[in-house]
Amino acid sequence: MALIVQKYGGTSVGSVERIQHVARKVAGFRAEGHAVVVVVSAMSGETNRLIGLAQAISETPVPREMDVLVSTGEQVTIALLAMALHEIGVPARSYTGGQVRIHTDSAFMKARIEAIDDAAIRTDLDAGTVVIVAGFQGMDGDGNITTLGRGGSDTTAVALAAALTADECQIYTDVDGVYTTDPRVVPTARRLPKITFEEMLEMASLGSKVLQIRSVEFAGKYNVPLRVLSSFEDGPGTLITTEELDTMEQPIISGIAFSRDEAKLTLLGVPDVPGVAARILAPVGAKNIEIDMIVQNVGLDQTTDFTFTVHRNDAKAARAVLDEIRGALGARDVISDDKICKVSVVGVGMRSHAGVASQMFQALADEGINIQMISTSEIKISVVVDEKYLELAVRALHTAFALAEDHVNADA
Amino acid sequence: MALIVQKYGGTSVGSVERIQHVARKVAGFRAEGHAVVVVVSAMSGETNRLIGLAQAISETPVPREMDVLVSTGEQVTIALLAMALHEIGVPARSYTGGQVRIHTDSAFMKARIEAIDDAAIRTDLDAGTVVIVAGFQGMDGDGNITTLGRGGSDTTAVALAAALTADECQIYTDVDGVYTTDPRVVPTARRLPKITFEEMLEMASLGSKVLQIRSVEFAGKYNVPLRVLSSFEDGPGTLITTEELDTMEQPIISGIAFSRDEAKLTLLGVPDVPGVAARILAPVGAKNIEIDMIVQNVGLDQTTDFTFTVHRNDAKAARAVLDEIRGALGARDVISDDKICKVSVVGVGMRSHAGVASQMFQALADEGINIQMISTSEIKISVVVDEKYLELAVRALHTAFALAEDHVNADA
Repeated sequence: MALIVQKYGGTSVGSVERIQHVARKVAGFRAEGHAVVVVVSAMSGETNRLIGLAQAISETPVPREMDVLVSTGEQVTIALLAMALHEIGVPARSYTGGQVRIHTDSAFMKARIEAIDDAAIRTDLDAGTVVIVAGFQGMDGDGNITTLGRGGSDTTAVALAAALTADECQIYTDVDGVYTTDPRVVPTARRLPKITFEEMLEMASLGSKVLQIRSVEFAGKYNVPLRVLSSFEDGPGTLITTEELDTMEQPIISGIAFSRDEAKLTLLGVPDVPGVAARILAPVGAKNIEIDMIVQNVGLDQTTDFTFTVHRNDAKAARAVLDEIRGALGARDVISDDKICKVSVVGVGMRSHAGVASQMFQALADEGINIQMISTSEIKISVVVDEKYLELAVRALHTAFALAEDHVNADA
Repeated sequence: MALIVQKYGGTSVGSVERIQHVARKVAGFRAEGHAVVVVVSAMSGETNRLIGLAQAISETPVPREMDVLVSTGEQVTIALLAMALHEIGVPARSYTGGQVRIHTDSAFMKARIEAIDDAAIRTDLDAGTVVIVAGFQGMDGDGNITTLGRGGSDTTAVALAAALTADECQIYTDVDGVYTTDPRVVPTARRLPKITFEEMLEMASLGSKVLQIRSVEFAGKYNVPLRVLSSFEDGPGTLITTEELDTMEQPIISGIAFSRDEAKLTLLGVPDVPGVAARILAPVGAKNIEIDMIVQNVGLDQTTDFTFTVHRNDAKAARAVLDEIRGALGARDVISDDKICKVSVVGVGMRSHAGVASQMFQALADEGINIQMISTSEIKISVVVDEKYLELAVRALHTAFALAEDHVNADA
């Protein structure tokens, strides 16, 4: 008998029929003797409907009231799921974030969980009652309703699992696990039975949007075993864990991540003097533009070229900043390009294997793909290439690192 | 400068445009220097949508979860109205029932308010902030969400007005006041500038569904001046007050109420012995059927005929009870008739005027309308007649008591 926290996303609870399906799944786990806490999102489409109402009233709705508004989405789902469980004879009790109590700070629309009072939940679980918690929401010290930001239901689930020291936190979604890369790009992409938190973080932040990054960080920090599964098909999903596999079993590369949402900006001929990087990036950061990759070449003539990438939506704003500061910096020119993409190989195995970079660059060179930027971390190598090469690059790397072949890392 | 509690019903907040209209109205009152508390219902249609979701899952949804579900309707409205006020530069703050705190008992779906903590609201009002409260909901001692039953937003408004000792509680609706009778039946029906609580109770319970009965009782008990107004047109509405008008000004009859929702049941030839009424009504009450009028004639031959009315929806169930107990009672026969209606004249003036009853009966006789049952109270005389006479009877009485003529009781 285990204590399991399960999270079902908006698609999984998108209709009355799907809520009833979730109720039957939950009832099955309880029948096996498990104590179950269920975290649910709003029914798919509901959050957007509510945001639409707000935007019809104000372009910039008051954040406090946005949270009062959108938190109703999850509240509807918890009530319906509790009813569906009662209907099949399973005792269940719903909790809003405030009722749990999930204490957060007062940063409306992007609050952070500070503490969870698990007393009421434990009493219910001890009595054999299924506990249903509204994801994505909490309450601040003054009793105001807060939300954790979009997709924050994953974070709620992980935080509850940590507070209850649950045996496993299961994230049910519309995919059946984490793949070596996007199967729409590479049809032979393979589901990974296991992945480490570090790898998952790199995969998620690079566009494999299976889990919210914050929930993965949280799970890693509190050592909560996290499993991604499909709510529509049975299967073991992907377990995200702190334990690294034996070197023998360890694949060098776990997956290929990619992102189309990048734009590249370059300041040409910047005087190569100390402090110049800060003088470029500070005004960009001041506009709330997040910077991803940064590359600065060694200069030849006491000047250097300084290149960085931002989210494509921020490209215009970043360009405007550079145009403004170019004169003061004494830079020769500004160029920007949003027809680029980022492709990365990720794997804890590369720590103990030399030569991953050269193998990657060779695979791209064999396809005639020119690399515009390179950035590396301990478990990841990213390159920026022309966006027209995205699919070609991902497929070439998937093949080069033999990710389709399921000869290692099989399900237990 | 006054403290005003305003309540806007579902039709008044039925769309984004209407919510913006309400915001402008509220802003106008605040600009005049008034402190304003606004109570709102769910947007029209929303509560039915939510109930529909619940009924798709269960024929008898768990009451606790029903309240979690339907309370989201008002929560959406408070957030949107707060946003709309901010948008036109008016500071506003929304409160769910639980946030206020409106303490109730734990009777889910029909909870009663036990206490209101007005501390937070008073702080906001003192700071010039408009306070927006979700109607129809509260929280019990264990932190469970409760609702006051359908239409309970009126009760929330009156309870808040009582707790805050507000100068006036204004109920905005889609009619511009309380009328002498339904204008759809009598086109010359006249808006009453004033009406007493007692009269309003009789008018409301008899089918003039402008206000919830419980809210009127509550307002009367705590002496809260209550005003019914239109949210779409400007006008003074109808003030419901404890103060009776001078005898000189007092009309004998304030209005004609009616109900089509009645059915009549008669047990013929019941032995005329003590206790027989209880033996008939106890099993009817045991089926949760509410009994309205009761008439028992004096018997001639040691038997009597016992007649009562129930809501038309309960007629079949009541008939079944009578058929079952008839033998044991020794009654001769059971007859039932749901083609009846109830018409009543209401007015505190009849206390000091004799002859109202005879005037009423004569007016009906002049039209050839046969009276089947009569029931009286201090400020009301009700008759049951064939339902085909309903309009004729209401018009005849409206004329007989000169209700269309606005020679008394004019607006101040």
